[in-house]
Amino acid sequence: MNFALIGAAGYIAPKHMEAIKSIGGNLIAAVDPHDSVGILDSYFPKCSFFTEFERFDRFCEKLRRNGERIDYVSICSPNYLHDAHCRFALRIDANAICEKPLVLKNKNLDALEDIERERNKRVYSILQLRLHPNAIRLKSLVDKRKGTSIVRVEYVAPRGLWYNYSWKGNVEKSGGLTTNIGIHLFDLLLWLFGPVRLVDVRETNGQGVKGTLGFYKTAVSINLSIDGDTSSRVFSVNGEDYDFTKNFTGLHTKATRILSMDMDLV
Amino acid sequence: MNFALIGAAGYIAPKHMEAIKSIGGNLIAAVDPHDSVGILDSYFPKCSFFTEFERFDRFCEKLRRNGERIDYVSICSPNYLHDAHCRFALRIDANAICEKPLVLKNKNLDALEDIERERNKRVYSILQLRLHPNAIRLKSLVDKRKGTSIVRVEYVAPRGLWYNYSWKGNVEKSGGLTTNIGIHLFDLLLWLFGPVRLVDVRETNGQGVKGTLGFYKTAVSINLSIDGDTSSRVFSVNGEDYDFTKNFTGLHTKATRILSMDMDLV
Amino acid sequence: MNFALIGAAGYIAPKHMEAIKSIGGNLIAAVDPHDSVGILDSYFPKCSFFTEFERFDRFCEKLRRNGERIDYVSICSPNYLHDAHCRFALRIDANAICEKPLVLKNKNLDALEDIERERNKRVYSILQLRLHPNAIRLKSLVDKRKGTSIVRVEYVAPRGLWYNYSWKGNVEKSGGLTTNIGIHLFDLLLWLFGPVRLVDVRETNGQGVKGTLGFYKTAVSINLSIDGDTSSRVFSVNGEDYDFTKNFTGLHTKATRILSMDMDLV
Amino acid sequence: MNFALIGAAGYIAPKHMEAIKSIGGNLIAAVDPHDSVGILDSYFPKCSFFTEFERFDRFCEKLRRNGERIDYVSICSPNYLHDAHCRFALRIDANAICEKPLVLKNKNLDALEDIERERNKRVYSILQLRLHPNAIRLKSLVDKRKGTSIVRVEYVAPRGLWYNYSWKGNVEKSGGLTTNIGIHLFDLLLWLFGPVRLVDVRETNGQGVKGTLGFYKTAVSINLSIDGDTSSRVFSVNGEDYDFTKNFTGLHTKATRILSMDMDLV
Repeated sequence: MNFALIGAAGYIAPKHMEAIKSIGGNLIAAVDPHDSVGILDSYFPKCSFFTEFERFDRFCEKLRRNGERIDYVSICSPNYLHDAHCRFALRIDANAICEKPLVLKNKNLDALEDIERERNKRVYSILQLRLHPNAIRLKSLVDKRKGTSIVRVEYVAPRGLWYNYSWKGNVEKSGGLTTNIGIHLFDLLLWLFGPVRLVDVRETNGQGVKGTLGFYKTAVSINLSIDGDTSSRVFSVNGEDYDFTKNFTGLHTKATRILSMDMDLV
Repeated sequence: MNFALIGAAGYIAPKHMEAIKSIGGNLIAAVDPHDSVGILDSYFPKCSFFTEFERFDRFCEKLRRNGERIDYVSICSPNYLHDAHCRFALRIDANAICEKPLVLKNKNLDALEDIERERNKRVYSILQLRLHPNAIRLKSLVDKRKGTSIVRVEYVAPRGLWYNYSWKGNVEKSGGLTTNIGIHLFDLLLWLFGPVRLVDVRETNGQGVKGTLGFYKTAVSINLSIDGDTSSRVFSVNGEDYDFTKNFTGLHTKATRILSMDMDLV
Repeated sequence: MNFALIGAAGYIAPKHMEAIKSIGGNLIAAVDPHDSVGILDSYFPKCSFFTEFERFDRFCEKLRRNGERIDYVSICSPNYLHDAHCRFALRIDANAICEKPLVLKNKNLDALEDIERERNKRVYSILQLRLHPNAIRLKSLVDKRKGTSIVRVEYVAPRGLWYNYSWKGNVEKSGGLTTNIGIHLFDLLLWLFGPVRLVDVRETNGQGVKGTLGFYKTAVSINLSIDGDTSSRVFSVNGEDYDFTKNFTGLHTKATRILSMDMDLV
Repeated sequence: MNFALIGAAGYIAPKHMEAIKSIGGNLIAAVDPHDSVGILDSYFPKCSFFTEFERFDRFCEKLRRNGERIDYVSICSPNYLHDAHCRFALRIDANAICEKPLVLKNKNLDALEDIERERNKRVYSILQLRLHPNAIRLKSLVDKRKGTSIVRVEYVAPRGLWYNYSWKGNVEKSGGLTTNIGIHLFDLLLWLFGPVRLVDVRETNGQGVKGTLGFYKTAVSINLSIDGDTSSRVFSVNGEDYDFTKNFTGLHTKATRILSMDMDLV
């Protein structure tokens, strides 16, 4: 299986390279405006690299014309570019494997679905947290439970000053704290409890959000913050704590393996 | 001791952060046009970060006016920017601790010396290889030896395709293979054998250089290459091999500690 | 007719805006990494503007989904991006009107033709010099003439030092003097005399090219240069001079009008 | 007199080139991250051009060391960079001639004054509106008048959609409408009526500001807007209209001539 990767110099790219390598895939081309991509040497030294998207596009298009198919495009770019890069993947007849969130505005999701149909390819999202051992335990517990649950989520992921001066701190580019960091816990909650029926934001600023999400059979009190001294990612369900601070190793690889078999994550 | 750092998103920056932390220094400000600097969280989460040099300059200037001295500026930018960033350091009344090479053209070295005198501050170069255990053994051996030596250097540092499409592969920006990678071995040779008297380049292309350097008491045959499957950094002196492939851990820290005491490296 | 424009901050963009306005077209969206596009106010103040290609792509894609067709994409980007931007145009179901040269390498032309067929849209090139009064006179003269002709072209277009430090002076990006400036005279010669049978380059450097082009019924001696004090664009045919230094006003508009009727330029 | 210029590809740069040329100055070096600077050919084709500030810095520093003085640095960069670029000018022993506003925050002005003293050079601001014929008439009228005045300012400068997506529409970079466009009228009012004693903002949004400025002997009602179909820059003083929509030609040149004689503008 042939891969291309968008956003090779960023924080999350090495996890994708690791995943591609682990499942026996081949990374053929990578692009990033920033050229600090020495990490490629550890995984795919023969990978073509581009600092300009147009040249990357030309290379991928040439492969397509020569019948050398790129099967998947892994997308690790800043959030606000995700959907444009997914469209690129579909246009060169590849599937997209995209970091969360896929889009920053709902209506852009419709556009992605339309183009999925047009091109008969798929956009997969990396929902690796669902593969975490504690997530699996929780899911099984929640699925069995008949009555309502009381859930509290404490999600503190301290970030230094740099965060606010990177694209992650720019609401236009990251969507803000909830789409950039909160997305992990929201995905888990949606998976566990189904659709959200009520959103109550009590407090919000650039450093944190506090509020409640109402689901059919549970209300979840949430404290999401990047301010603090130590990481803490804990889901308390009916008094029992499920910790998501550790054991992330290998989840990207697992997720990629599943998606690359054209299966949904869960 | 207060530090500022230029080039925070690059490959070598974490070694400088590690070094600054280890010697009890404080990193106050960092700059890089690229904002993938999450690594700061592991060392100096309170460090101010800027993606534009002008804003970094304003911040440093403000500190200077308020009497909060920046003692050292660590410079990890692409090679061709080193001297401009050294000048910046001196202008804000700091010393510079700069990655090799300091300049790409000799005459720019004169300019640095002039401004060192003008500002009464110093530009230090990180010559960490001289602190490598094998370098120290070699130096002691060479210093004791009376007659001439026969030296061969095999310096193979494989790099993937990306290298040629990054600033490192751009002669205007890196100075080419000899100034970007060869600088390590040239520094060691100069330290061991004194000034060069003869340069004979036999073969050169973007991927490698072969040739001979003549010193007063030895001729060194050199094979420098980024093409190959495995790393190999070996100095053969009179038949004995000195390996520089491993044991680099901590050298940046040692070098920084020495420089920060305003002492020369060796 | 709706237009989008790529490269709005560059030198040639105002001529395209003028042309679009003159033929009653509407410029809906424009993109350029540089935001010095105040010129838009003189032509299309309601035009959406983007500094990032991905956002421009999203906007165009949204229009396409809503059935608001973009009929033409005018392409004024640096030469090496032309074919990638033409592909973009075709992918959003628009025709491309592209500055010369379309590509820097022949084989990329094949790729464009393939995708023209796939998408059933066309890539037009702005060959405005063919509409110059002197070009028309020359064409009529040459078409009537039976015997061989003696032709000399003196094409001196002085450029300052900046030229070498812009993308125009970068062979990778402009293709060099012949594809960036020479393209004008080569296009005219091909149009007048048919296919080239012989190329003889006598002298070439970053500032000029001298040589001869052999056609079926004529040999053309060429002096192309950006070094000099005054502009001079003269075709001498059998002793008579045809001047192309002036009278360019309106040619972009004429060319755009013709192309927008889906007609070939000549 | 030798000049260097920062921001050569921007909207206002040609006025500075024109001014430098007119007063017999020589533009030696120019810098802009964007390379669309063909305009240089019309004024100073021999001018060195750089797309990276560090290289420009190296060039200027080299001149300084060789005793080729740069007398003035003209600054046409985005507003938020003005003070950093002024500092650069002073550090290379040149005076700065800077577009308004000099700074976006008051305290940065103190820093500039300190460094002016340190380096014994000056930062001049281009206050060209004070040289407008109607400004001069108004000034003379106001200076003679004993009683209070009733003043209304209607300053409508329509801008297209692009404005909001350029640095000018970014409050962090331009300071917003009042510092980017309003600065012209505020400068005039301060010059005419002295220090402001009261600020009353009635209405403000990204497209306009309405309010009143109270001076010692007059209250000025202001309507500043970039929304509208036609430009209108009118000061109504005691019922008489003074129009500032036209007759700007040559004011930059006049201002530069005066400043280059080390005289204050008025």
